[in-house]
Amino acid sequence: MVERRSQVVLGLDPDPAALWPVALSRPLAADPASPAELTAAAVVRHGRAAIEAAGPACVAVKLQLACYERLGAPGWQALAETAATARDHGLLVIADGKRGDVPVTARAYAQALVGTTTGPYGPVWGLGADAFTASPLLGSDALEPLTTAANAVGAGCICLVRTSNPGAAELQDVPAPKRPLHERLAQLVDELGRESVGASGLSSVGAVAGATRPELLGRLRELMPRAVILIPGVGVQGGTVETLRPAFSAHPAAALVTASRSIVDAHRSVGGDPAAAARDAAEELRAATWVLT
Amino acid sequence: MVERRSQVVLGLDPDPAALWPVALSRPLAADPASPAELTAAAVVRHGRAAIEAAGPACVAVKLQLACYERLGAPGWQALAETAATARDHGLLVIADGKRGDVPVTARAYAQALVGTTTGPYGPVWGLGADAFTASPLLGSDALEPLTTAANAVGAGCICLVRTSNPGAAELQDVPAPKRPLHERLAQLVDELGRESVGASGLSSVGAVAGATRPELLGRLRELMPRAVILIPGVGVQGGTVETLRPAFSAHPAAALVTASRSIVDAHRSVGGDPAAAARDAAEELRAATWVLT
Repeated sequence: MVERRSQVVLGLDPDPAALWPVALSRPLAADPASPAELTAAAVVRHGRAAIEAAGPACVAVKLQLACYERLGAPGWQALAETAATARDHGLLVIADGKRGDVPVTARAYAQALVGTTTGPYGPVWGLGADAFTASPLLGSDALEPLTTAANAVGAGCICLVRTSNPGAAELQDVPAPKRPLHERLAQLVDELGRESVGASGLSSVGAVAGATRPELLGRLRELMPRAVILIPGVGVQGGTVETLRPAFSAHPAAALVTASRSIVDAHRSVGGDPAAAARDAAEELRAATWVLT
Repeated sequence: MVERRSQVVLGLDPDPAALWPVALSRPLAADPASPAELTAAAVVRHGRAAIEAAGPACVAVKLQLACYERLGAPGWQALAETAATARDHGLLVIADGKRGDVPVTARAYAQALVGTTTGPYGPVWGLGADAFTASPLLGSDALEPLTTAANAVGAGCICLVRTSNPGAAELQDVPAPKRPLHERLAQLVDELGRESVGASGLSSVGAVAGATRPELLGRLRELMPRAVILIPGVGVQGGTVETLRPAFSAHPAAALVTASRSIVDAHRSVGGDPAAAARDAAEELRAATWVLT
C-alpha cells in the first residue's frame, strides 16, 4: 500500500467479446476443449496481461464474479487462476460477488470466498480472497457469519452502503424515520467492525460507497471512521477522483478507488496498445488518488 | 404443477459433512481426483438421491449456489449436473444465488443463470435455470437486466422482499416515510412484472417472502397480485404452512413453499432411511400446502 503509493484497485470484469487481442489464441483444429474452456483460458490470459500492465500502479485486483460465473465451471477455474496471478504480482484479491443470504447460507459463501469446507475426502479450499463484497439487505445476523469468517483469516468484508448506479437512489436514499437506508447501513458496518480494528485503526468490515454521489461521502466517513471505503463509479459511470476527498482519512488504506473499464478498456478511447493504455490510465489514477490522503 | 398437485420446492443446500450415506463412495487408492472433485461427485449423488426420493411430491428444486460454489470449479460442475438431474425428473430449477449488482454486471449474472455468453470460440451456455433469486437492494435499473433476460427465455426472476431470518427486521421492516422497505420492494416487484404477465395471470417477476412473519403476507399479496411468491422459512426456521394462506391466490402456482433441511435432513429427527424420510416429509408438506389454494 504505502510502498506502492497507491489506493487504486484494478477491476477485472472480463467480457469474452472484448478481450485484449493478446489473449486470443487460435485453437487447434483437433482441440477437444469446449467453447467454455477455450473462452475461460482466454479470460485467464487477458487477466494476466491486464495485471502485468496496470498492476504496478495498483494495490489490489477486484474480480467480478459474475463475469467468471457466466463461463460455468471453467470460469470458476479461471477465477481461481486469476486470483493466483494477482497474488504472484503482489496484489490483494477482492472477490466482488455482493453475496448475502440467511446465516446458514452466509457461512457457505464465507467458505467459498475466504474459508475451507470440511468434507468426507479432506478439506476443500475456497478462493482465498483477501476481501470480498457483501450485500447487507438481510441484516446483521446474515452479515455476522461473513465478518466472523473474514476476521478468522485476516480478510475483509466490504458491505454495500451506497452503490454507484442511478437506481440506488430509489431505495438506499429514501429517508426512513431517522435517516436514509444508506446511513443505517453505514451504522451497521461500523457496529460490525468495532471488534476487528487492527493496529492501523482500520477494521475488517468495510463499505462500498459510490463516486457518483460524492456529497454523501463526508457523512458516510463520519458514520464509519474505521471502515475501508471501496469506491466504484469513477470513469465510465461519471464520478471524478477530485470529489472523493471526504472519504479519505489519515490512513492511506482508508479509501480505495476501484476502476475497471476505465483502465482495461482505456485503449478504446485513447487508441494504441491495450497494455500501454491500461498502464497509463492506472498510473494517472494512482497519482490523482494518492494526493487525497 | 397442477398434474403434480404440489407447490413444494425441494431445496438442496448440500453440506459435504452431512451427505446421505448412499452418496459416499470410497475413492480408489490410486484415484487422482482432488478432495474438491471427490466431494463434488458425492454432492451430485446426494442430490440425485434426494430428487429421486422427494421429487415426486415437488414441482421444483431450489439449488443453493453458495453450497456448490464452496467446492470451486468442481462444485459449479456439480451444480450443472444436479440441475440436469432435476430436469430429467420433470422438476423446474430455481437457482438460489440472490444475485444483484449494477446493470452491466447484472447482465453478466443473467448470462450465467438463464442466458448465453458470446465469446470468440462460440456461445457459452449458462446454467439454464427456470427461475433465479435476486437481491433488489440496488434498485430497478439493476433489476431490469435480470428481468429482461428472464423474460427473453420464459424464466422467472424472484426478488427478495421480506426474507425469513431474524435480522431482516432491522432493515426490511423499518418504516420509511410512507411504508416499510419490504412494501417498497413489493411495489418494485409488481411494477417490474407488469409487462410479463402470462395467460396464467402470473408475471415472470416473483418475490421471496418468508414464512417467519406470516402476518405480512396478506399485505404483500395485495401489493403483488400477479407475483409468484416463493416462501422459505417453514420447518427448521420455525414457520408453519397453516399460516401461509394469505400468500396464496386462485392460481395454484401463485405461491410456492420451499423446504430444504426439513426434507433432506428429515431422517435426523424421525430416524430410518434418509430417502424414505425425505419422501414422507415432502409428501406431507405437499398435502398440507395444496389445500391452501
